Amino acid sequence: MQAGPQEERVYGMPRYRLTIEYDGTPFVGWQVQSEGVSVQGVLEAAILKMTGASVRIRGAGRTDAGVHALGQVIHVDLEKDWPADKLRDGLNFYLKPQPVSVIESRVVPDTFDARFSATARHYLYRILARRGPPALLRNRVWWIPRPLDAEAMQEAARVLVGRHDFTTFRATQCQAASPLRTLDRLDVVRAGEEIHVYASARAFLHNQVRSMVGSLKLVGDGKWTADDLRQALEARNRAACGAVAPASGLYLTAVDYPPGSETES
Amino acid sequence: MQAGPQEERVYGMPRYRLTIEYDGTPFVGWQVQSEGVSVQGVLEAAILKMTGASVRIRGAGRTDAGVHALGQVIHVDLEKDWPADKLRDGLNFYLKPQPVSVIESRVVPDTFDARFSATARHYLYRILARRGPPALLRNRVWWIPRPLDAEAMQEAARVLVGRHDFTTFRATQCQAASPLRTLDRLDVVRAGEEIHVYASARAFLHNQVRSMVGSLKLVGDGKWTADDLRQALEARNRAACGAVAPASGLYLTAVDYPPGSETES
Repeated sequence: MQAGPQEERVYGMPRYRLTIEYDGTPFVGWQVQSEGVSVQGVLEAAILKMTGASVRIRGAGRTDAGVHALGQVIHVDLEKDWPADKLRDGLNFYLKPQPVSVIESRVVPDTFDARFSATARHYLYRILARRGPPALLRNRVWWIPRPLDAEAMQEAARVLVGRHDFTTFRATQCQAASPLRTLDRLDVVRAGEEIHVYASARAFLHNQVRSMVGSLKLVGDGKWTADDLRQALEARNRAACGAVAPASGLYLTAVDYPPGSETES
Repeated sequence: MQAGPQEERVYGMPRYRLTIEYDGTPFVGWQVQSEGVSVQGVLEAAILKMTGASVRIRGAGRTDAGVHALGQVIHVDLEKDWPADKLRDGLNFYLKPQPVSVIESRVVPDTFDARFSATARHYLYRILARRGPPALLRNRVWWIPRPLDAEAMQEAARVLVGRHDFTTFRATQCQAASPLRTLDRLDVVRAGEEIHVYASARAFLHNQVRSMVGSLKLVGDGKWTADDLRQALEARNRAACGAVAPASGLYLTAVDYPPGSETES
């Protein structure tokens, strides 16, 4: 019998690509730390319970405490061949009651690396700009109790798009060797009472999205102009950054990989 | 000085119309009950703390335990003249840490009654139809771990629109004198991985929306046809109803009032 393209491979030590959604609120962040519960930690615990394998997994984005994900991507190698769907469902069983969900599972070539193969990371930042505090969106947005000028924010956002030294917009503890990054997209869109900021790049510096959003919010408040934002960027100085936006509004929405990298050749 | 139309009135015993958002998850429902915490109860407690007045408030919709609201409407009479904005902000202060938020406050004529003046109530029901359980939307949707045929659901929904005896679709403990209601809108719309059901009527029977959605879901699953739904309606028998949809997916989104009823004449 010939194996069709849709069938699971049934040999070797398969690598799985998992897409993960989580509510970041109760976690110390993505990464395992000396204290507290991490998303990585609860995923590794679920893999251990289901498969008996003690593995270290790697995520495409190392989200901070309180940051959410709609489409975090990890890979993991398992000794046993699990049908990809069974792995997804079994992990979801063992993940309960944590607010972490495996929404997709696929077998990928062992050349696929969730972190190093990624060609783009996409983030969404949600601001709720209205007088009444959020009830249904608590821990899901940054609440600003007044209107913001989304059009001015969008205009100013263009200043940051492209290849720049983002020293102003990275955390002092950022460990990246270079502050140079290419920001492919930074868009500010009004969505009812919310303002959504979309940011895409191959890679971001630590706290870069929250730092950029914090400064854009000053533009929305009329405290900064687009030119102030440009001067902050050109200062290449962390002290020139506006207050960093809170974690609760940030979502890792998707990660891109090169065409063909996720399918067996 | 002449009082313009935008100014607060500063005489008499003003009536306020408040628009309320809440996460229904931790509450026994809208209405005060002998045990447990109700939305009405926490609002009345906040009004007491802020104004010293012990009042009984009435909501336009008496939502059940776990049902949410984006636009519940209440009215309340207060002895003291509070600027409407101060009342909103003060109540939000005293409502903390409950997931209940006053998103609008207005002075209205004392002929305005949040419950009895209402001409339409609008509900949204959210279904998440995908294999992975909700992490970010926990307690915010009805999770169905497989695709549903939204087009078949929309087609069948037409059966229920109009004036009918909705005995099949009301809770056995429903206290309405008549099972006759006019359903003005019942629309099923696909929204990514979600299916949204919009329902509008002057008034609904107890559990009517959740009962209709429970039966529509059988259509989405291919277990019922539109004709099965019609037969269930025509049976005028609670036993003919599909399993009632859970509270977590239901939102009271808005309440309509006659033009002019909310402004001082």
